[in-house]
Amino acid sequence: MTELRKDPIIDNWVVISTERSRRPFDYKIKAEEKRKDNCIFCEGNEGETPPEIFAFREKDTTENKPGWKVRVVPNKYPALKMQAREAILEKAGMFWKMDGLGAHEVIIETPHHHKDFNNLSIDNIVLILKTYRQRYLDLSKDKRIKYILIFKNYGIDGGASLEHPHSQLIATPIIPQRIKEELKGAKEYFDLNGRCIFCDYIKQEIKFKDRLIKETEKYVVISPFAARFPFETWILPKYHNAYYEKTNDDDIFSLAGVIKDTISKIKKKLNNPPYNFLIHTASSNEFSAGEEWTDMDKKYHWHIEIIPRLTKIAGFEWGTGFYINTTSPEEAAKILR
Amino acid sequence: MTELRKDPIIDNWVVISTERSRRPFDYKIKAEEKRKDNCIFCEGNEGETPPEIFAFREKDTTENKPGWKVRVVPNKYPALKMQAREAILEKAGMFWKMDGLGAHEVIIETPHHHKDFNNLSIDNIVLILKTYRQRYLDLSKDKRIKYILIFKNYGIDGGASLEHPHSQLIATPIIPQRIKEELKGAKEYFDLNGRCIFCDYIKQEIKFKDRLIKETEKYVVISPFAARFPFETWILPKYHNAYYEKTNDDDIFSLAGVIKDTISKIKKKLNNPPYNFLIHTASSNEFSAGEEWTDMDKKYHWHIEIIPRLTKIAGFEWGTGFYINTTSPEEAAKILR
Repeated sequence: MTELRKDPIIDNWVVISTERSRRPFDYKIKAEEKRKDNCIFCEGNEGETPPEIFAFREKDTTENKPGWKVRVVPNKYPALKMQAREAILEKAGMFWKMDGLGAHEVIIETPHHHKDFNNLSIDNIVLILKTYRQRYLDLSKDKRIKYILIFKNYGIDGGASLEHPHSQLIATPIIPQRIKEELKGAKEYFDLNGRCIFCDYIKQEIKFKDRLIKETEKYVVISPFAARFPFETWILPKYHNAYYEKTNDDDIFSLAGVIKDTISKIKKKLNNPPYNFLIHTASSNEFSAGEEWTDMDKKYHWHIEIIPRLTKIAGFEWGTGFYINTTSPEEAAKILR
Repeated sequence: MTELRKDPIIDNWVVISTERSRRPFDYKIKAEEKRKDNCIFCEGNEGETPPEIFAFREKDTTENKPGWKVRVVPNKYPALKMQAREAILEKAGMFWKMDGLGAHEVIIETPHHHKDFNNLSIDNIVLILKTYRQRYLDLSKDKRIKYILIFKNYGIDGGASLEHPHSQLIATPIIPQRIKEELKGAKEYFDLNGRCIFCDYIKQEIKFKDRLIKETEKYVVISPFAARFPFETWILPKYHNAYYEKTNDDDIFSLAGVIKDTISKIKKKLNNPPYNFLIHTASSNEFSAGEEWTDMDKKYHWHIEIIPRLTKIAGFEWGTGFYINTTSPEEAAKILR
């Protein structure tokens, strides 16, 4: 089978080419090597990181000391950082640039070094997800920030430079390109049809079933129709909500179970691959993000995208935005189901 | 330094963050491992590949036998292939798909296994570049094809699954997303200013000098202002031309020298990194590519983009289109100069 598929949300096509079809274990990206460095994120080494911004802690413990359950610290080498002044757009010849204003934080998910979503307790995952929510809510008060990304890189080939389980947050003074395209696609669909594109997408996938990995009361787990990567997996809430940070405790409790289950399946079926885990959410700083992005609450739909890193990305895929996926989403869903 | 820079051509921002500044040898992607498989691209093994489509050969040698200098064969596992019928757009629920119509070819650059642009003769590079031109011209006769990509992946981490020096060609029934964005950016600039954006870009870089790596009579080599990757390097013709396939023999002879010199510098300064090499050109099937892309000859400007693969791409960069580059283009140019 070789087929081009249009992403239903953004204006992009993907090649699904299974000529050289591969079974999960044919992908040769190896499982994690356990590094035994003196880990700065482990309990007892709190002094090695910049001072904590937020933590869930045992009663009567002190900040920057042991006793935490989830801990947020600034990235030691931040890609972006808060400054006293506004981000100023400057022109140099035909070029535009701007201060690297923003935030770059690390969410240390647990004091335990050798854990991940598959073997953390549901309670621990709930605290991680509540930490994400708290950081979105806290940082979105700063009107200079236009977007907040939370993501997790797992494994060296997933881009993790430290092994200890952690997520990252990057707050930016612009909306990243792919998110902007998604917002735009969702807006155009809503303006035309009067409905959320993701809500329609979910209904269709529940009906078609061939790309459905799991359905619970509140969530669906699917292989997206125009998956860019083999075994790319999305978790979407069945309830309509544009903003991750507006999830309630009950939503989060259910989500924790779905994440644990999904990551467990991916690890088991794909031999513990490196992966990336990304939360896509509308910008809650709507007004400051620009007038075109106001009123996104009806139009967008937060969700999680998980990308197992099974293939060496052929460089031309970056260079052109043209992805070739050698495992069909239907086959991937069948294996992960 | 941490700074956001807007790509002058497409609507995208890049973070240049040198907080954790790294010298070239700090990037730990290792140089090539030499694999000694029984290479299907080596001279004498012509029977192992599908029959050749085109070759430059010694006089009186026979096709699919030894005696070739550059040889083009179909990819054994093509991502796309030619079919008898037109590519038909089909709708399935809210989804659109299309036959995987197109072509996927391999350009075997030399009979010698252990060579690359740095140690091939200028004559050999000239034949490779002429082969590229011949393939563009030949395939663009088929009006079902909307775009032709020629690129090279070097090294396992560059996405090369075989070591023998080769480039690839993928002909697609759509214009890939990033190329479309470039065409659009170039078109908008021309419509506003009446000039080619790349011509202006080149003039400015020659004047500013801080991102200029090399200037010859016909070409410039630069670190682009909004480089997505450390040591990303572009080669641009100083003469205006939208189409690679319209280069003349003299243009190609000069280009061969510039490519040899640029790849040699990258290998020497960056410890033989894996890399990707991509030709960006306007679609010569202008009419079939859609009315909006006609008349691009004045507006676009073909060029080569080289991306050394020095870092593990944090997955969120794919997920969001938001790139963080830890070496500033000015520093990269200084090192490569």
